[in-house]
Amino acid sequence: MFFENKGPFKLSYIKSKCAISSINFEGKVNDIKSLNNAKKNDISFLDNSKYIKSLHSTSAGYCVLKEKHAIHLPSTCKPIISQSPLNDFIKISILFYPDARYDKHSSLYLSKGQLKKKYKKVKFGNNVHISKNVIIGHNTTIGNNVIIENGCNIGNNVIVSSNVIIKNTHIGNNSIISFGCVIGKIGFGYKLINNKIEIIPHIGQVIVGNNCNIGSYCVIDRGSFSNTKIGNNTSLDNHVHIAHNTEIGENCFIAGQVGIAGSTIIGNNVMIGGQAGVSGHLKIGNNVKIGGKSGVVKDINDNQSVMGYPAVSIKDFLKNDKK
Amino acid sequence: MFFENKGPFKLSYIKSKCAISSINFEGKVNDIKSLNNAKKNDISFLDNSKYIKSLHSTSAGYCVLKEKHAIHLPSTCKPIISQSPLNDFIKISILFYPDARYDKHSSLYLSKGQLKKKYKKVKFGNNVHISKNVIIGHNTTIGNNVIIENGCNIGNNVIVSSNVIIKNTHIGNNSIISFGCVIGKIGFGYKLINNKIEIIPHIGQVIVGNNCNIGSYCVIDRGSFSNTKIGNNTSLDNHVHIAHNTEIGENCFIAGQVGIAGSTIIGNNVMIGGQAGVSGHLKIGNNVKIGGKSGVVKDINDNQSVMGYPAVSIKDFLKNDKK
Amino acid sequence: MFFENKGPFKLSYIKSKCAISSINFEGKVNDIKSLNNAKKNDISFLDNSKYIKSLHSTSAGYCVLKEKHAIHLPSTCKPIISQSPLNDFIKISILFYPDARYDKHSSLYLSKGQLKKKYKKVKFGNNVHISKNVIIGHNTTIGNNVIIENGCNIGNNVIVSSNVIIKNTHIGNNSIISFGCVIGKIGFGYKLINNKIEIIPHIGQVIVGNNCNIGSYCVIDRGSFSNTKIGNNTSLDNHVHIAHNTEIGENCFIAGQVGIAGSTIIGNNVMIGGQAGVSGHLKIGNNVKIGGKSGVVKDINDNQSVMGYPAVSIKDFLKNDKK
Repeated sequence: MFFENKGPFKLSYIKSKCAISSINFEGKVNDIKSLNNAKKNDISFLDNSKYIKSLHSTSAGYCVLKEKHAIHLPSTCKPIISQSPLNDFIKISILFYPDARYDKHSSLYLSKGQLKKKYKKVKFGNNVHISKNVIIGHNTTIGNNVIIENGCNIGNNVIVSSNVIIKNTHIGNNSIISFGCVIGKIGFGYKLINNKIEIIPHIGQVIVGNNCNIGSYCVIDRGSFSNTKIGNNTSLDNHVHIAHNTEIGENCFIAGQVGIAGSTIIGNNVMIGGQAGVSGHLKIGNNVKIGGKSGVVKDINDNQSVMGYPAVSIKDFLKNDKK
Repeated sequence: MFFENKGPFKLSYIKSKCAISSINFEGKVNDIKSLNNAKKNDISFLDNSKYIKSLHSTSAGYCVLKEKHAIHLPSTCKPIISQSPLNDFIKISILFYPDARYDKHSSLYLSKGQLKKKYKKVKFGNNVHISKNVIIGHNTTIGNNVIIENGCNIGNNVIVSSNVIIKNTHIGNNSIISFGCVIGKIGFGYKLINNKIEIIPHIGQVIVGNNCNIGSYCVIDRGSFSNTKIGNNTSLDNHVHIAHNTEIGENCFIAGQVGIAGSTIIGNNVMIGGQAGVSGHLKIGNNVKIGGKSGVVKDINDNQSVMGYPAVSIKDFLKNDKK
Repeated sequence: MFFENKGPFKLSYIKSKCAISSINFEGKVNDIKSLNNAKKNDISFLDNSKYIKSLHSTSAGYCVLKEKHAIHLPSTCKPIISQSPLNDFIKISILFYPDARYDKHSSLYLSKGQLKKKYKKVKFGNNVHISKNVIIGHNTTIGNNVIIENGCNIGNNVIVSSNVIIKNTHIGNNSIISFGCVIGKIGFGYKLINNKIEIIPHIGQVIVGNNCNIGSYCVIDRGSFSNTKIGNNTSLDNHVHIAHNTEIGENCFIAGQVGIAGSTIIGNNVMIGGQAGVSGHLKIGNNVKIGGKSGVVKDINDNQSVMGYPAVSIKDFLKNDKK
């Protein structure tokens, strides 16, 4: 795994350390997880009623949530009632993963000799920094000055161009990561907790699919409690910014200087013109076309073409333009 | 040259490899070229009737084009009739220049000692990667971690700042390339050919003039079948994105985070405000002023000032603003 | 200091070298300074009547200014009358600080051994380039490929991530500078003087406060004749561009791909959404919220929320949107 789990912790310890008075039972917690991935001894949370369905099927042993939502929990999951579940969950996650709030470099990289021995079918440039636990597939090329940190998994026939930095990331086969991309850094997430601005731990990853093409100086932030994803056959032009927890589908083309804010889900076969922006927590359907420089602030259904700021259907945009 | 030409190829070989059934004559093809640059044994193409004039004067021996355009060819040029000339030309160009679709790093860079011996009047930082066939002028400074790939030509009194990557590029005298610029990488060009997304080979270059000033983290993509150009005395601020085949004139000032899409031609003495965007395949005249954050989607005549999205004359923009 | 002062110079020498015929007295000038910082033997300038108040209290010995403003000077300050004070001051500043127009790298960096000896409580990555006169605080981490040039001062508990370039900059305690930031480079400043485009010397610095968080590939340009400032507890997301002389207050959050043009002053507790742009020479109050993708072209009072381009109050923006 990418980050060291400082747990398991007893619930009584979590209660005292995080000042969560509503924890009223014994037991040990192994890990923090999203509702869908949590197991018996894990703790999860629900902050947004939009995701209530995930409560019914969760295998989590404990869930931080509002009192009104507790009724939806299965009997196997104990409620930890909170008035601000996200804040309390962040406090708990800092306890488990304090290092997931800072992007420090590894203390150890493989030497040229070690690289040659370990990765017989990989071509390396100079001054590369590859941490100990990195998987790199056959016929992959790693450019000059590249840094790949612990736990990353790079597929076959991948081109990682010079000056790229990759951490907390899986990259599929036949993908191209152009010059200077930063993939897997922490996202832009802060919360005011007890009058102090806390950096939200980011224990998620970035998953880049097969046959992807990521342009120069793109930055793709890793997820906080879920993953950031780029689907197969999707291409990004230069200077694109993909925020934490965002998911982009397959066969998408995203032009230069586009920004996608956090936790937005984009479908397949979506085309986004240059300098467009998409707000956070939106759902963009399949086969959507977003015109250059548009600002998308609402969900978009399948097969729509939109333009403008706020983005409207292209017909409406052109009508307004003629007025 | 920057890319290895795998040719010459016989037309019969091209016919079979590229599945172009309309090739009905013998002969050998040396190279692929634009209509204006092609010679007797070269092959060229016409996809857009806008460029029909170039047909009349071409010296190309062969031209891929639509049936209706063949009548414009000189008798020295044999037509290769195609329903999608660009697609067929891309298939041919992949045959000649398969490497022009990928930005891999060189396998060989000069050592510190070799650099000192070869470039007596150049000042180098540390960890520089200069390929074998690079010309660097007198009194030029190359910063730390700079990479300059095969075939580049850097003028006199140039400052190439640290972390810059340059390939397939000529840079004139007295120009400044600020930190982290990427100049000469492949552009964002794809075509769906036989139900497969193909990367368009980019065999063009980037030509940066004299006395240019390129800000930090600008990315200037090389041309596909022509060149990307930045004219003399033109300055770009930070984070500017210049796409493939774009030509910018002399004495222009382009502010931060501007994006110019592909194949657009911009005149002399043009000023572009921060975060503006210009669509592809446009013609922007001389002495044009484009306001910050504008989105230009149409050609602009000489001496115009425009603003807004879509950009209109500043008078109209301010009128609308007052409504 | 960051740049070598080639002075002191006699006024007669300045007069002849800069072709400023209005210099009619003897004396020696030690340095060029802003009105507020200048001392007895320094020269300063006033170009914009907005700053007339600074004239009354200046300790400068000489001031380049328009004839109509000379009446405001204290008796201790001798007027140098000019029709274009900024142009003449730039000519003088080039005389004093010719190197402040170019970002060349140092000729000398400390070796690994020297770094270990000098900075016992700092953790360094590989291929770091630290110049001789750099202060780095305790418990600070410097990533791979980092370059820190002469005169910089980095606080305690700072994380400088890999591929960062820092020059002419002070960074407070507990701040995080993410991957690939460029802080302290020259700004985008040119002036047409005697029919030649001159680069304006940038002798200012960048001052980053405590507990700041600067995202990947942000570029913060240093000031020309004053400083660029980022206040305590302020966070920038990725790809943000901060131009020269800009000052940002405390506790601000600035989202991805935002651009702030030069000499703009932003208050405390300001939030700016992704891809917004703020024009130069503006004053943005405290507790202001600027919506994503907005273009701000006027001053904004305290406690306002604005959106759109040109940005208007959110109420007006939504009203227009409904029409």
